[in-house]
Amino acid sequence: MVAKLTDTERDAALQDLPGWRLAEDRDAIAKTFKFADFNAAFGFMARIALIAEKADHHPEWFNVYNRVDVVLTTHDAGGLSKQDVAMAMAMDSLASEIS
Amino acid sequence: MVAKLTDTERDAALQDLPGWRLAEDRDAIAKTFKFADFNAAFGFMARIALIAEKADHHPEWFNVYNRVDVVLTTHDAGGLSKQDVAMAMAMDSLASEIS
Repeated sequence: MVAKLTDTERDAALQDLPGWRLAEDRDAIAKTFKFADFNAAFGFMARIALIAEKADHHPEWFNVYNRVDVVLTTHDAGGLSKQDVAMAMAMDSLASEIS
Repeated sequence: MVAKLTDTERDAALQDLPGWRLAEDRDAIAKTFKFADFNAAFGFMARIALIAEKADHHPEWFNVYNRVDVVLTTHDAGGLSKQDVAMAMAMDSLASEIS
């Protein structure tokens, strides 16, 4: 069982995650990624899908054309966990490669 | 430029698309697909992504774990077109293979 981050841990994590924000009505973080086109956006999603499956930690995400809206939370922890922070960092790293 | 379906054409198309509904606030159709797990859900999305890119007609879709919520509309037509009907049929066909 993964532990939920404390408020202090969550605030510290967010400071290291530019562009990520707290979701409005849930203990979750959210970010919108924009790419050149659908090819790049879905390429991002495909690579993240492999990482997510390996970690058994899956995002909630919405895609339309070049845009990917992501929400991360840990259902087992009832909120944000270090797994979400790790996934957010993986997404940022990959997005900067693709963009 | 793709023509928008007339009301009559839209209603006829929906009768041949089980599980699809009109979106509430837009001229679009929507359906929720459920699969065994993330592997199956993202496998569906990956195969549809290739079809979408080839047709240059992309869905709006949301995924969480084994669920994929799809909305189809044709921005160039300002509403539903035969491209959406073709995409909906392709999705139904593929989903029935995977499920």
